[in-house]
Amino acid sequence: MTRIEEARQTLLETDVNLKMEEIQTEEAYGRVIAENITAKTEVPSFRRSAYDGYAVRREDLKDASKEYPVTLKVRETIPAGSRGKFPVTEGTAARIMTGAMVPEGADAVVKHEDTRFTEKEVCFFMPAGAANIVDAGEDIKQGVSLIRKGKILGAADTAVIAGQGMSRVCVFQKPRIAILSTGNELTEPGQELVKGKIYNTNPFLLAGYVQKYGMIPKDYGIVPDETDVLADRIQMALNDNDMVITTGGVSAGDFDYVPKVMELIGADILFHRIPMKPGGAMLAAVKDGKVILGLSGNPGAAAVGFLHIGLPYMKKLCGRNDIHLTKAQAILAGPFEKSSKVTRILRGTAKILEGRLVFEQTGNQKNGAVSSMMDCNLLGEIPAGSPALPAGTEIDVYVV
Amino acid sequence: MTRIEEARQTLLETDVNLKMEEIQTEEAYGRVIAENITAKTEVPSFRRSAYDGYAVRREDLKDASKEYPVTLKVRETIPAGSRGKFPVTEGTAARIMTGAMVPEGADAVVKHEDTRFTEKEVCFFMPAGAANIVDAGEDIKQGVSLIRKGKILGAADTAVIAGQGMSRVCVFQKPRIAILSTGNELTEPGQELVKGKIYNTNPFLLAGYVQKYGMIPKDYGIVPDETDVLADRIQMALNDNDMVITTGGVSAGDFDYVPKVMELIGADILFHRIPMKPGGAMLAAVKDGKVILGLSGNPGAAAVGFLHIGLPYMKKLCGRNDIHLTKAQAILAGPFEKSSKVTRILRGTAKILEGRLVFEQTGNQKNGAVSSMMDCNLLGEIPAGSPALPAGTEIDVYVV
Repeated sequence: MTRIEEARQTLLETDVNLKMEEIQTEEAYGRVIAENITAKTEVPSFRRSAYDGYAVRREDLKDASKEYPVTLKVRETIPAGSRGKFPVTEGTAARIMTGAMVPEGADAVVKHEDTRFTEKEVCFFMPAGAANIVDAGEDIKQGVSLIRKGKILGAADTAVIAGQGMSRVCVFQKPRIAILSTGNELTEPGQELVKGKIYNTNPFLLAGYVQKYGMIPKDYGIVPDETDVLADRIQMALNDNDMVITTGGVSAGDFDYVPKVMELIGADILFHRIPMKPGGAMLAAVKDGKVILGLSGNPGAAAVGFLHIGLPYMKKLCGRNDIHLTKAQAILAGPFEKSSKVTRILRGTAKILEGRLVFEQTGNQKNGAVSSMMDCNLLGEIPAGSPALPAGTEIDVYVV
Repeated sequence: MTRIEEARQTLLETDVNLKMEEIQTEEAYGRVIAENITAKTEVPSFRRSAYDGYAVRREDLKDASKEYPVTLKVRETIPAGSRGKFPVTEGTAARIMTGAMVPEGADAVVKHEDTRFTEKEVCFFMPAGAANIVDAGEDIKQGVSLIRKGKILGAADTAVIAGQGMSRVCVFQKPRIAILSTGNELTEPGQELVKGKIYNTNPFLLAGYVQKYGMIPKDYGIVPDETDVLADRIQMALNDNDMVITTGGVSAGDFDYVPKVMELIGADILFHRIPMKPGGAMLAAVKDGKVILGLSGNPGAAAVGFLHIGLPYMKKLCGRNDIHLTKAQAILAGPFEKSSKVTRILRGTAKILEGRLVFEQTGNQKNGAVSSMMDCNLLGEIPAGSPALPAGTEIDVYVV
């Protein structure tokens, strides 16, 4: 296991306290389901007509032709949502609408445009072709596993749940994630920028990711560079949230006091620093069963720390069953011209060119760059010790 | 142009009335931006130190070695967020923290762990290596186009906007989409299912897609199969929404009266029926500048009509600049064993196998099946007139 995998794994081994709630199925889109859904009823639950036409016995039409048409007596009309009163017996047919229950005895539906009909009789000019019947259970068979606990419910998932007659469904509560920024150089957007200061962009970046992955962000603002103030603020955030993310103050400098604060509040440090660039200057700790993730103050590095190290744990915190990063192999669209002493994470985007997955770098790969995260949907991983890589090199990529 | 492309195009030619609103940047994740963002200020706006260390003149250290270290006088300490009082001149250095403004005169920062220092002096044992300075404009240069009007704002987009000091941003209002279900066979989930009836799953399916693509669904429930009731209900929905979607009642049967209702309310029909399977039984009409999309009552067909025909128009309605379907080529993972008289749309999922895009069918491809939409993220298009296709055939696919 690499130290990157170890860091992910250490986080994943932290227990989570999942809370459930029951909601209306119509509110369930995008939520993580907290129960397994097994088909209690087959769908459809009866034989349905696929077209407007006539429900017949094939046997009755087997000799029908243009020269010798077959005429059947129409005993009733069955609109969708109704069931017929009579079975279809020799010499009879039922007029039937799309979706209506095919009456007993009938084994085919002939489209009405292929017939000539009056109110009482219908005339056929050839044997029945396709059955035009949707069999009971054609879409969903009784007893099959439909949706596994821990899935993010997509549009069709909510429809399948509704198709089982369920107007309510059990989901996991969305985790609440506190975001604290440290750094005396930070100014809130909307305020005037004094020379030497920068706008605080990390809470926007991280709150966006928090939402993207189905959690609720809460911004605790910029905390002054004072150990006891930060300790208080982190403790407050821990009380009201399921996880706390800080930015800044995690490298080796004098003012990098997040590790000291962890000690002060009695949090157990899981790891501090990973041999990874960018984002290696990060820390994870646990207090009261809740994780504190201390990310770099550099936005590019913070994003990589969040996505490449923290995300599997956060997916677990959501109750998801697909917590591991989605990994694939892709080809570098352009060269990467630096050698990599430690594992290097590149920000890029997926292209499909001639059916092949291609990794295209999204610009500036430096620690502080946030612009290169704008269209990033793939992180590329270059192993420690790699030389400069030419275009066309295959690398491991992770979907984000 | 195929008739499928024509149908999409006809819808796209309908004018839309886009409404804007100004919101807090922290609320902007996932919204469609209604303005172009150009960099007013470069980011960072000044030269920043990449590490904790000493800001120096390279010239002063050029002869430094273990045997002959160079000692400089430390004139001040510059924490992040502050600017120094003095330029760095010959024989002097400034102690500097990560992110702080590099003082004039300095052209490199030496990491503090590579030095020996007291409060007043610092000692260097080799010439300066890397500059360790983040140049002004390294992430974002002044005047560059950052975000184009019509983009869905991702996490890093909101961070880039915040980095420009903008606490508010102009976005398009989310379109409101009414969903009406027709069909006497329909029962709401949660109620008892009488034989011959089915649960109404389409509003769940369509409301899910509506949300997925950034719009607001409103369910108008099941409308009884009476022309004047449906006409009233559609008119009511048109008044309060930007678009109306109906399901059912669009094929050729007696009870398929959506086309008649369009006439009744004075809507202009844009098209009715497309040679496409499933989903070809669909209709589009315009009234008061608003589109009414009449989809099949069969969920699989409704989904294909929504995604493959209606979606580009709906993206336009959102104000998006990327309205066209994302098309690629992929290889069939398994055979498709039917020949296709008209264009056939297959539901499937994207896999990357050995770096190649592969299309894997997600089960039952029939009109009524909704289970096969559950993990569908790719629609495959098989051209009209195709024979049965073996595994490995390359087909056009569309990302949904």
